[in-house]
Amino acid sequence: MVNFSLMKKTLTALLFLPLLGMAQTGDEARIKQLSDEIMRNGRAYELLRQLTKDIGGRLSGSPQFAKAVQWGKLSMEQNGADKVYLQECMVPHWVRGGQDKAYLVEINKKKTNQQLDVLALGNSLGSGTVTGELLAVADFEELEKRKDEVKGKIVYYNSGFNPTNIKPFVSYGESGIYRRWGASRAAKYGAIGVMIRSLTESTANDPHTGGMAYIDSFPKIPAIAVGPRDADKVWAMSKSSAMKLAMTTNGHFLPDTIGHNVIAELTGTEFPDQIITVGGHLDSWDVNEGAHDDGTGVVQTIEIMRALKAIGYQPKHTIRFVLFANEENGLRGGTKYAAEAKAKGEKHVFALESDAGGFTPRGFSIQASKAQLEKLRSWIPLLSPYGSFEITGDGGGADIGPLNRTLGIPVGELLPDPQRYFDLHHARSDVFENVNKRELLLGAVNMAGLIYLVDKYGL
Amino acid sequence: MVNFSLMKKTLTALLFLPLLGMAQTGDEARIKQLSDEIMRNGRAYELLRQLTKDIGGRLSGSPQFAKAVQWGKLSMEQNGADKVYLQECMVPHWVRGGQDKAYLVEINKKKTNQQLDVLALGNSLGSGTVTGELLAVADFEELEKRKDEVKGKIVYYNSGFNPTNIKPFVSYGESGIYRRWGASRAAKYGAIGVMIRSLTESTANDPHTGGMAYIDSFPKIPAIAVGPRDADKVWAMSKSSAMKLAMTTNGHFLPDTIGHNVIAELTGTEFPDQIITVGGHLDSWDVNEGAHDDGTGVVQTIEIMRALKAIGYQPKHTIRFVLFANEENGLRGGTKYAAEAKAKGEKHVFALESDAGGFTPRGFSIQASKAQLEKLRSWIPLLSPYGSFEITGDGGGADIGPLNRTLGIPVGELLPDPQRYFDLHHARSDVFENVNKRELLLGAVNMAGLIYLVDKYGL
Repeated sequence: MVNFSLMKKTLTALLFLPLLGMAQTGDEARIKQLSDEIMRNGRAYELLRQLTKDIGGRLSGSPQFAKAVQWGKLSMEQNGADKVYLQECMVPHWVRGGQDKAYLVEINKKKTNQQLDVLALGNSLGSGTVTGELLAVADFEELEKRKDEVKGKIVYYNSGFNPTNIKPFVSYGESGIYRRWGASRAAKYGAIGVMIRSLTESTANDPHTGGMAYIDSFPKIPAIAVGPRDADKVWAMSKSSAMKLAMTTNGHFLPDTIGHNVIAELTGTEFPDQIITVGGHLDSWDVNEGAHDDGTGVVQTIEIMRALKAIGYQPKHTIRFVLFANEENGLRGGTKYAAEAKAKGEKHVFALESDAGGFTPRGFSIQASKAQLEKLRSWIPLLSPYGSFEITGDGGGADIGPLNRTLGIPVGELLPDPQRYFDLHHARSDVFENVNKRELLLGAVNMAGLIYLVDKYGL
Repeated sequence: MVNFSLMKKTLTALLFLPLLGMAQTGDEARIKQLSDEIMRNGRAYELLRQLTKDIGGRLSGSPQFAKAVQWGKLSMEQNGADKVYLQECMVPHWVRGGQDKAYLVEINKKKTNQQLDVLALGNSLGSGTVTGELLAVADFEELEKRKDEVKGKIVYYNSGFNPTNIKPFVSYGESGIYRRWGASRAAKYGAIGVMIRSLTESTANDPHTGGMAYIDSFPKIPAIAVGPRDADKVWAMSKSSAMKLAMTTNGHFLPDTIGHNVIAELTGTEFPDQIITVGGHLDSWDVNEGAHDDGTGVVQTIEIMRALKAIGYQPKHTIRFVLFANEENGLRGGTKYAAEAKAKGEKHVFALESDAGGFTPRGFSIQASKAQLEKLRSWIPLLSPYGSFEITGDGGGADIGPLNRTLGIPVGELLPDPQRYFDLHHARSDVFENVNKRELLLGAVNMAGLIYLVDKYGL
């Protein structure tokens, strides 16, 4: 019944869609075969358990990241790769250096000792405790208006997500600037530390870390994110109370160290020198298990390779399965991959990443020409039975961005349902238990289907 | 930017869609207003906390259900209803009667004492411990083949979900017959008890209860569901071992008792005698908090009413917001609602339910004429910015089924993402903590949008 209805839908679609990229009914059968293989025999969930529980958080430069590289190589070898190799790149080595802490130590000149749940932002520098009066502002606009009050204080940005954005990634874009640039913008006016509201709409109080950057011309002051419930409290109190905060962080950089992209290939039968890339990033933050960010992308990548091999599919193009290094605080893996591709004069057809969580797939976001987008959209009837209803023109994953910019090739990213992503993203709660097996596997199904179609018909 | 892109999409859609039910650009603004109101000021999450934490599980006939009726009435009054009333109906009163237990007490004639995690099925009868040899079968087909072996034994059905079904509700349909009829089918051949694999693909071991029914001509033997990991164990052992099971259940019926549908109305300005119904069911099983089943449908129903009132919308038709009694083990609330509608000669336009969990909406499943379906589908461009991509012709919710069968009116159900529903459905884990606030509110947004369009344009 399901198949019959799928056939009807596809036939109807074929009547109305442009002939460009028109797919055959044999494609339905192939994609169903891939789906059945993944949903019935998929190893992604068990691989994710290994990566999150046996290895855990794996920030660039850490021993855990090195362990993840070896695990990735072995997993690729055990799941059907024609060849597997490591691509070396230098990565930054930031360490948290201890437990981040923050206390409200004075409210309206009265001593107190109220702990806030905080995490230092990634790449931020600290060397112990900084104590100062808190200046709470809504945003950069208010900071600019009150710049004369900043000197010697700790600035708090109440930079919350806008709940009316249906797509939380839009909110992340709007509020992410406070995490990235909040410290330097405040240091410019003499602030001694900054605290931001965690980038989330979660109802829990977990703080969310994530990458920040300093502008070299201003003092490099410490920066923390505070849990959203504590943020509510601080923001409410700031309307009527003067507060003093003591924040303790110890972030610092060790020398750059060697990291690796893990690369596996299924060799193309017709165009072995033309490459389709599928990937996710192997590194994660240090405070969690990097389950949705991006353990799920890593194991989906391996799963797609395993499933293509398991059903006996022989790709026309060479398909590369890449576990990228250092997405979180440097993008050195993706940058290296693109630089090598350019240096070697490789011909790349398409690159696809999964780095928005292992949730139920809703479609893909693609950066491509209008004609390529049309061709991709003509395949929606083949993918919608598995959840993909839309192909937006919004862009691809971070790690394959350099490939797009360097070689000008089309790139894309799986679009999972985004509503829960920022509950977990960069927080302690991004653990294996918060990944659903079927949702994870379905993401791999939809990616495998798209890769199959790109391999068969080109772009 | 979001609005501009929405406008472009809608205009494009209008160029190609049938004129039937053609919507105006004012509709976009209205639906955005509803969405902003719900996403910013929604009370559904806090109402759900009250219903699940202050009241908890609320099986028909229980004191908790009576408490939920009073809570529902008060909540409706406090959230903008023009009027609120209770509609009385008799409901069954099944009680679990104690803690359900099961132990493997003998393996290959050797005594043992291995506890299995089980729950008695709802409506099943038991009065203590039944001990017997276990006959494990895959399905009814195997039962029929082995019917001569059944007498005096406890039958185990390994009736698991088919993981290759992309829609878990299809699996529920396929395997649900074992929960409903497994006991009588086995009792027919002399079985003294039955155990089914819980209806789930969850990776956890929680057992899942749910309604069963007896065929009067066969003995009413006790029936339990076993957790999926224990089911794996039993099924694997059954290949090579003889097992004896002791199962303890105490389910029984008390006399039918009085229950109520809770009904609130916003009175129509143009067609006050024509009714649009929106609802969910207030009862739940006794072993959990009935969060996704169907606390989320209940609070979405109240939220839609609140939001329509909050934006000052004056409906043309009378909109009824109904919290139905007794969906889980009798459907007496929905049956009564339809019977009263018929007896009073009410004119009903459309009914919509939310009873498939409070997950991110993907669309609606509707039972309606072809012309009505086309009209509904012409509105997808207005709803897709909020997540609704499809309107299937599969049918509506259980509680409004009687209204459809009695009056022949179109009915529909919110189609949330279905992948996680059966992890929680009827299990202990269906609690408040497993509901995501944004996903819950987005369901209400999509339902409110559809109700607004049906009210404005009719069906």
